[in-house]
Amino acid sequence: MDTCGPGNHFPAGREAAGAPGLNGAESLVHTLAASGVEVCFANPGTSEMHFVSALDQVAELRPILSLFEGVATGAADGYARMAGKPAATLLHLGPGLGNGLANLHNARKAGSPVVNVVGNHATVHQRFDAPLTSDVEAFARTVSHWVAAPRAARDVGALAARAVQAARSAPGQIATLILPADTAWNAAERPSPALAVAGPAPVGEEAVAQSVAALRRGHAALLLRGAALRGRGLRAAGRIAAATGARLISDTFTPRIERGAGRVVVERLPYRPEPTLAFLGGVETLILVGTQAPVAFFAYPGLPSELTPPDCTPLVLAQPHEDATSALEAVAEALGAKGAPAVAPYRPASAPMDESPLTSEAIMRIVGRLLPEQTIVSDEVLTGGFPNYPLLETSAPCDYLQLTGGAIGDGIPLATGAAVACPGRRVVSLQGDGSAMYTLQALWTQAREKLDITTVIYANRSYAVLREELDKVGAREGAKAFSVLDLHDPSLDWVHLARGMGVEAVRVETCRSFADAFRTAVGTRGPFLIEALV
Amino acid sequence: MDTCGPGNHFPAGREAAGAPGLNGAESLVHTLAASGVEVCFANPGTSEMHFVSALDQVAELRPILSLFEGVATGAADGYARMAGKPAATLLHLGPGLGNGLANLHNARKAGSPVVNVVGNHATVHQRFDAPLTSDVEAFARTVSHWVAAPRAARDVGALAARAVQAARSAPGQIATLILPADTAWNAAERPSPALAVAGPAPVGEEAVAQSVAALRRGHAALLLRGAALRGRGLRAAGRIAAATGARLISDTFTPRIERGAGRVVVERLPYRPEPTLAFLGGVETLILVGTQAPVAFFAYPGLPSELTPPDCTPLVLAQPHEDATSALEAVAEALGAKGAPAVAPYRPASAPMDESPLTSEAIMRIVGRLLPEQTIVSDEVLTGGFPNYPLLETSAPCDYLQLTGGAIGDGIPLATGAAVACPGRRVVSLQGDGSAMYTLQALWTQAREKLDITTVIYANRSYAVLREELDKVGAREGAKAFSVLDLHDPSLDWVHLARGMGVEAVRVETCRSFADAFRTAVGTRGPFLIEALV
Repeated sequence: MDTCGPGNHFPAGREAAGAPGLNGAESLVHTLAASGVEVCFANPGTSEMHFVSALDQVAELRPILSLFEGVATGAADGYARMAGKPAATLLHLGPGLGNGLANLHNARKAGSPVVNVVGNHATVHQRFDAPLTSDVEAFARTVSHWVAAPRAARDVGALAARAVQAARSAPGQIATLILPADTAWNAAERPSPALAVAGPAPVGEEAVAQSVAALRRGHAALLLRGAALRGRGLRAAGRIAAATGARLISDTFTPRIERGAGRVVVERLPYRPEPTLAFLGGVETLILVGTQAPVAFFAYPGLPSELTPPDCTPLVLAQPHEDATSALEAVAEALGAKGAPAVAPYRPASAPMDESPLTSEAIMRIVGRLLPEQTIVSDEVLTGGFPNYPLLETSAPCDYLQLTGGAIGDGIPLATGAAVACPGRRVVSLQGDGSAMYTLQALWTQAREKLDITTVIYANRSYAVLREELDKVGAREGAKAFSVLDLHDPSLDWVHLARGMGVEAVRVETCRSFADAFRTAVGTRGPFLIEALV
Repeated sequence: MDTCGPGNHFPAGREAAGAPGLNGAESLVHTLAASGVEVCFANPGTSEMHFVSALDQVAELRPILSLFEGVATGAADGYARMAGKPAATLLHLGPGLGNGLANLHNARKAGSPVVNVVGNHATVHQRFDAPLTSDVEAFARTVSHWVAAPRAARDVGALAARAVQAARSAPGQIATLILPADTAWNAAERPSPALAVAGPAPVGEEAVAQSVAALRRGHAALLLRGAALRGRGLRAAGRIAAATGARLISDTFTPRIERGAGRVVVERLPYRPEPTLAFLGGVETLILVGTQAPVAFFAYPGLPSELTPPDCTPLVLAQPHEDATSALEAVAEALGAKGAPAVAPYRPASAPMDESPLTSEAIMRIVGRLLPEQTIVSDEVLTGGFPNYPLLETSAPCDYLQLTGGAIGDGIPLATGAAVACPGRRVVSLQGDGSAMYTLQALWTQAREKLDITTVIYANRSYAVLREELDKVGAREGAKAFSVLDLHDPSLDWVHLARGMGVEAVRVETCRSFADAFRTAVGTRGPFLIEALV
């Protein structure tokens, strides 16, 4: 796996540190560290104080404070996408977890491994209707693949090791360990060693053979997601395309894709139903690699939900939990596709750098010209982003992260976690203003951790995507409807908002001033925010 | 019921407006309006566009946009506490509801009526794994007393009427109506008329007689919550106290209490276990009026969860869903307690107005001197608030709202909703800086709606309550533990944050400058924020 962190292949059975005589919280932090968890994105409360105290015992586990839980969970998602392994989150009972659910939903849809540690009342206290009493497990079930709660302190270590194991199950899962306060403060036994993690399941020969046959017939396309969009997997897909003429397509929103110069070019599936059906016209076999057959993001009156055209047959090469990389290499091998794949040249699109007013397109062109090598781009621009996505195809190579679950408010936390995972790499966070407001607290964490993140706010001062949607569903926009889609009156001032959280910022209205600000920002250490009026 | 809104007694059977031939969304808004719902705190998405469009058809339903769902749900809580009836919220699928859960948890613990309208994918679309597909009902169950989803557009009106009825069931419930997009856009039938709402259940004669007997024996205290803390209920409690010497005590955190000059003085139950047990020492009968026997907010090693002292017997006069007001009046009547109750004089505590540095105590003293008549105070100060709570006892009469569910991030939204419910009254929002960060987006709604809210940020730049808690649970604070409890580095700048959302703001460090700023703020229309360094 190409990652910038230590990768997912942490050896099982590594002995956990920590002497006997630990309490449950101490056994937990030692176990997490032994299982390869290096970062804990935290927003703790009273019931997590023993965990907080135990952090000082484990040099390998770095706590990073966020001022809102959605920041912690979104950062864990971004970290996982880039590090290829889970971070922990530390959250406070049901409502604290509640605040983190939207970005855990996004992480779930991304196949990101995340280990949530959620405090709960002491077991003896749970039967009382205290103010913070809630059904923590019910909160956890909404987004988790795996949920457990120890009944006693001595169970904490073993369950923590299983939580990490569950999170690391391919392609990546949400594991939630609910920690009653007394299981944190009571005496535990030794921490647990790391448990073995099975890699992605191998793909059967028949699936490979069927794909090879379909590719030989022609009029095929590969729909790619996950590991198929980077490193060996993407190069194998490129060889297949070169040998057969097959189209390479990514999901509309993918967790992570390698783009830019030197990379195989992948088309992006459109967002709306009609263009998607047209886009897939002429494709007779749609080979699914780590993904599912395309479905509409939303239903619309009179339009289909399934977007595979009637004369196109979907064919599964690799399911999301399967080894897409090896499967693509096996297909390429069977096809005799040994040549180097066609890759994009370094030839950034032209960009206006004059006094003309900024547009979403101009921003992407300028970003494309000035993007440093190996940047990580977090894209949550929505309306302003779609049409301009191809403009980065021939820019410097980058990793590109998208909103996978549609729960807006992922972008700034995602950038934050990616920067934690990859110190030394620049992160550029392209962000719509409406969606930025859900988790703007992430800027404070960027400042505290001095992360090299350049945030570009596309300030159109509107839920622009919803005004399009209102039209698409055939609804009408009267004065009251307008009032809940418009963000003027008052206009958000992102320079003030960023400075309020310790992030330096500037507002720009022309292409030249944006280019100047962006050039300076990506050349400077630490976070910087550009409010781009579009 | 003393409210500043139209009250809870909306006549059942009122005919809903709206012609036949409506779609489901239109039948919903007409039904909500017919059922007495006047405000919808909205953060919509694509699947709610027909609802948004329908808003323009109903003059009685006012949409108020928030830029984060926790603002919408917290505002609905504040509105309900002051209006005595539910507002609607409009939220977007599982993750949007997820963002609103923490403040719905607080509303649930407050006994506030809230009607959530949560969009979902069209029924035909739910079986696909689209990005935003989730188990919306699972999200809803975490906090809701009542959940339903129509299967067809023609069911929407009837279910909406039942949702309002459920929300209005005493003392107030969380009702969540999940609205698949096709049930909004398909043709419906007529809207539904309002359904009858049963008032609070009457208290039996035996409960009254037992309380009377206990009060006659002496060494009794009344523990009050809900309607017992205002209007007729509070006055009856005052007469009982005057006649029998019984102590009057409120829960540590109550949804709403009438305080200040002309009101019966009520002691506040302490926060921590040991002081609570000491506080209740000598009480032989604890008469519960609209509340439960006291339990600890959190469990602590070696301390009890139940805080009724061993030699004290709890006795239920009125359960939360019962008619505490009539029960207290019946007790007073049986005791012959006809005289006027003792009430607080108007005699504000002394306040420093000089150049001395601000403290939490000085803030409360100054607020107490300068508080306008009939202010609504929202208190989410935590560490800085507790010891200074009694200082408002002899200030101008006010309604005082507290954090009922312990899920921090309620205060600014609560103030917002209270101001919407009570135009013409001043709202003062006393707010810790750590908890303010969870829902700071509420400031934007305050600016857009030009609400008369004065926010005071107690800027101690720390999760101070947690540093106390770390000590209380016997845990240690090393460098890493400190790092997740401290909010310096960088310091939040609330003047910038407020201005970023269109709210004028000032930072003060001395008593004189705070007094000047507060006097100006409460005398000016619209929102204003004071960052008070303490």
